[in-house]
Amino acid sequence: MTIRTVGFDGDDTLWHSESHFEVTQGAFRDLLRRHVPDAEVERRLAEMEMKNLTVYGYGVKSFTLSMLETAIELTGGRIPASDLEVILGWGKRMLMEPTELLDGVEETLRKLSGRYDLLLITKGDLFDQEGKLARSGLGDLFLGVEILSEKNVESYRGIFQRRGIKPEDFVMVGNSLKSDVVPVVALGAHAVHIPYHVTWQHEHVPEEELPEKGWRRISSIRQLRL
Amino acid sequence: MTIRTVGFDGDDTLWHSESHFEVTQGAFRDLLRRHVPDAEVERRLAEMEMKNLTVYGYGVKSFTLSMLETAIELTGGRIPASDLEVILGWGKRMLMEPTELLDGVEETLRKLSGRYDLLLITKGDLFDQEGKLARSGLGDLFLGVEILSEKNVESYRGIFQRRGIKPEDFVMVGNSLKSDVVPVVALGAHAVHIPYHVTWQHEHVPEEELPEKGWRRISSIRQLRL
Repeated sequence: MTIRTVGFDGDDTLWHSESHFEVTQGAFRDLLRRHVPDAEVERRLAEMEMKNLTVYGYGVKSFTLSMLETAIELTGGRIPASDLEVILGWGKRMLMEPTELLDGVEETLRKLSGRYDLLLITKGDLFDQEGKLARSGLGDLFLGVEILSEKNVESYRGIFQRRGIKPEDFVMVGNSLKSDVVPVVALGAHAVHIPYHVTWQHEHVPEEELPEKGWRRISSIRQLRL
Repeated sequence: MTIRTVGFDGDDTLWHSESHFEVTQGAFRDLLRRHVPDAEVERRLAEMEMKNLTVYGYGVKSFTLSMLETAIELTGGRIPASDLEVILGWGKRMLMEPTELLDGVEETLRKLSGRYDLLLITKGDLFDQEGKLARSGLGDLFLGVEILSEKNVESYRGIFQRRGIKPEDFVMVGNSLKSDVVPVVALGAHAVHIPYHVTWQHEHVPEEELPEKGWRRISSIRQLRL
């Protein structure tokens, strides 16, 4: 196989993301428990996020709106506006956070960028993802950037068509089996899975639905060999 | 001039958008005046939106978050959570609203799509814009869709490069002088301005900054001649 183009996921592949959500979720739980001591805050928030996904899509703004709605619902409307203001502030802080690269990312991308066409292929909020890329200092290493509202067979097919990429010449590198591996392998392209230490429940794929070949797993981007 | 590619803006060019914001803003003013009767709600909300633009970007989710922050700030934190819940509901309603096409849009696009490459070039929230396009029923008429976080000289130049478009063969059609006319004409391409009956203050361009040629103004998409 001759790889020409390498796609990289952003969140939790190149830079930390889910860990920031976890920190905020912890603070959110503590805040709500002051009003409703025995509330199952995490479960209720996760359910709210899933319910709102078709209206809001992914990203920090969606997450913030779902936290606010959960807070109002869980407290039966008794939460004071000042607490909701705190939650709004958490959302802003997440959006302004510096992009914190994972270990080995910059080195690996610099090495590969001379030999392959590199694409950043992320999903989520356009404005937020562009901001993270800009703050990452990695922008110049990518031939192109694709920010998708969902990563599925159709959206990857669209990228291959638009950019004249043959699936067999393409490898996708990312932390999500659902978004970075399964749809890519289904199109006859290759994938490398690099698990992150926290996986958002929504991204989980049952073992039996994983493709048998076309992908492999490594534990760090430093081990990436094409 | 031989036009090959026609770019269309979405919000307030193909479908109504700003008028939906105005309706919600009216309801927001009435809600807040019940707590602070003499509040300058519109001005405070507009200031909040501008302040938050670099953190949130454009779109309904950003608008909703700015309404919530304005409501808390203007009432000194005295607004009950149940009122904030109402505001959250307005945001969702706006996001789920059917795409309401402007007069003559479908007919004009169908006529042009056989003869030119049509691109949808919008700015704003990726998820929201894709949803509007899907609900518009116009998706198949476009060769491609570009959703940008900002429409400026750099982002238009990026589209021309990615798609191999010569500026002189391209015309952009839209309601915003700032986003659809000025940057396009600066690159040597053409523009057609179709004013919408409401213009968001942020999109205003002083008369003396308008280019002298390279663009023209029509009052309805039905008058579009290329």
